[in-house]
Amino acid sequence: MNAQTPVAVLGGGSFGTVLANLMAEKGLPVRLWMRNAEAVAEVNATSHNTHYLPGITLAPSLQATTDLSEALAGVEVVFVAIPSSGFREVLRQAVPLLTPEQILVSTTKGIEAGTFCLMSQIIQQECPDARFGVLSGPNLAKEIAAKQLTATVIASTDETAREQVQALLHTSYFRVYASSDTYGVELGGTLKNIYAIAAGLSAALGMGENTKSMLMTRSLAEMSRFAVSLGANPFTFLGLAGVGDLIVTCMSPLSRNYRVGFALGEGKTLQQAVDALGEVAEGVNTLRLVKEKAESMDIYMPLVSGLYEVVFNHAPVKEVARGMMLNTQSTDVEFVLPRQES
Amino acid sequence: MNAQTPVAVLGGGSFGTVLANLMAEKGLPVRLWMRNAEAVAEVNATSHNTHYLPGITLAPSLQATTDLSEALAGVEVVFVAIPSSGFREVLRQAVPLLTPEQILVSTTKGIEAGTFCLMSQIIQQECPDARFGVLSGPNLAKEIAAKQLTATVIASTDETAREQVQALLHTSYFRVYASSDTYGVELGGTLKNIYAIAAGLSAALGMGENTKSMLMTRSLAEMSRFAVSLGANPFTFLGLAGVGDLIVTCMSPLSRNYRVGFALGEGKTLQQAVDALGEVAEGVNTLRLVKEKAESMDIYMPLVSGLYEVVFNHAPVKEVARGMMLNTQSTDVEFVLPRQES
Repeated sequence: MNAQTPVAVLGGGSFGTVLANLMAEKGLPVRLWMRNAEAVAEVNATSHNTHYLPGITLAPSLQATTDLSEALAGVEVVFVAIPSSGFREVLRQAVPLLTPEQILVSTTKGIEAGTFCLMSQIIQQECPDARFGVLSGPNLAKEIAAKQLTATVIASTDETAREQVQALLHTSYFRVYASSDTYGVELGGTLKNIYAIAAGLSAALGMGENTKSMLMTRSLAEMSRFAVSLGANPFTFLGLAGVGDLIVTCMSPLSRNYRVGFALGEGKTLQQAVDALGEVAEGVNTLRLVKEKAESMDIYMPLVSGLYEVVFNHAPVKEVARGMMLNTQSTDVEFVLPRQES
Repeated sequence: MNAQTPVAVLGGGSFGTVLANLMAEKGLPVRLWMRNAEAVAEVNATSHNTHYLPGITLAPSLQATTDLSEALAGVEVVFVAIPSSGFREVLRQAVPLLTPEQILVSTTKGIEAGTFCLMSQIIQQECPDARFGVLSGPNLAKEIAAKQLTATVIASTDETAREQVQALLHTSYFRVYASSDTYGVELGGTLKNIYAIAAGLSAALGMGENTKSMLMTRSLAEMSRFAVSLGANPFTFLGLAGVGDLIVTCMSPLSRNYRVGFALGEGKTLQQAVDALGEVAEGVNTLRLVKEKAESMDIYMPLVSGLYEVVFNHAPVKEVARGMMLNTQSTDVEFVLPRQES
């Protein structure tokens, strides 16, 4: 790989901007595509993206553009950091501009409503011949921007693609570990938003350390059960994109999902929580979609079922919270000792 | 099982006392054996164990004794909550008093110096015909005493023994999950003490959430690699006795292991840290034993090696801390994508 081959990042939210900046600071030519012309002008004129990364001065060499063909021309690797609601649409615009040897890396966590597609599945549908991977892990964008030591996972079945992404993103403070379980890594990052709501809820109820740890571990049991039913490797949940991301999300009281849970735990309704936040947390959508999917596939998910009742059906939170955790006293890890269906 | 069959708990430290009290409050006849006659007198006369559980009033029915034969006569299940340094010796005293149908459950986390035996292995050596299991999980004794919702694991290859222990300990706030991986469950509880030192160290160095999560996840990778080399099931580390116990220990700034790490992170020596604590933290001994074992078996453990240099060889902590985590950028979970030996 030529160090001077340009790289594209689609999406100038906090994570896209941080990734683009990290590579620009390494001296790589980076093209950051953003839809918003004002934000593009701000990056190019002042090296700031004040809406998403207040207080961070970006590399002077980092150039943004609203022109997708300009962003994609001649690049080897394209990072796609577009919110899940707009992911497919932007990809459709990009497809005519892509060449088969380009590698598409999704950094987006979420599920498409209606199709239950993860972003890598949208890539495969829209660009069936594309080389692709996903990037996920315990990665608070603000901490990466502050150069706090951080680890992430590049997951792809394409070994060369994994190695290219490792080389592109590797710095003294950013470590990129490899996985071949694309679907599991992507699903870990997506599902954890549900359990961050539960973590916020338990904090509002004043639960102790034993309870919080129990809740996170049983969350992991449920996430991995669901993921395995959909074809993922359960061992992925031992890694950075599984338990690693779950830990950082459940321990970050500022995340939107956690705050929704905290508000519900204080007795507020979902509408009140959303009004206070100004937007719907991703985990609320994910909860609804996963609840439906788990029911249609008959997957046992007591935490998801309980949370769903609290979030959408005004169920009394303390009763449900207790019920959720007292539901079963069965096996610790069902991949060690199979769970007995009751 | 007759509800009136007595249960024995050997060891009146905080965990042994809490377990005995939990069962006594359920109405079970419990015999708590303690070596210390004054502590026995205090429990029997005042229903308090002020040294280990200050502020907690024990069940009036809970009786303590210094007489091992009195404690063991006619009981079905014996919980052994003796520190690892005295475990074998107490067991040797107990052996002539035991009958083959009795079940021995170790709650002790630690490794015997010289033999590298875990407590269940000591049980097997001293009582080769015994039915046995281990109890481990994210279980801060003070929170159990305060009736905070808590989950633990009973691990045994003996299904009837698992079910008996589940029935004995189950309450509205204490949940007992089952596992068949005795060795893995026991090793998880033991190894986590090492990584609690690393967690304290990282806190003293002001590391962010991304870094803490990375450190815990890479700790889990290293623990499970070691455990699998010794015959455990790697999936056990997804459970309460693996990641669950690691989370609660690494998040509890009051644990002795964490405090030793914090002191080292502030630039103190091991001797200064131990002087301040008044005793050696279990993790310090475990670190030394595991370092030797890993070297003799050629198991790659960069976190253990780095911590060993800081704790025992006065290596500069910031350099080692950075080096420990920057050592490799290989695979996320080696049970998904095998690690390449460099």
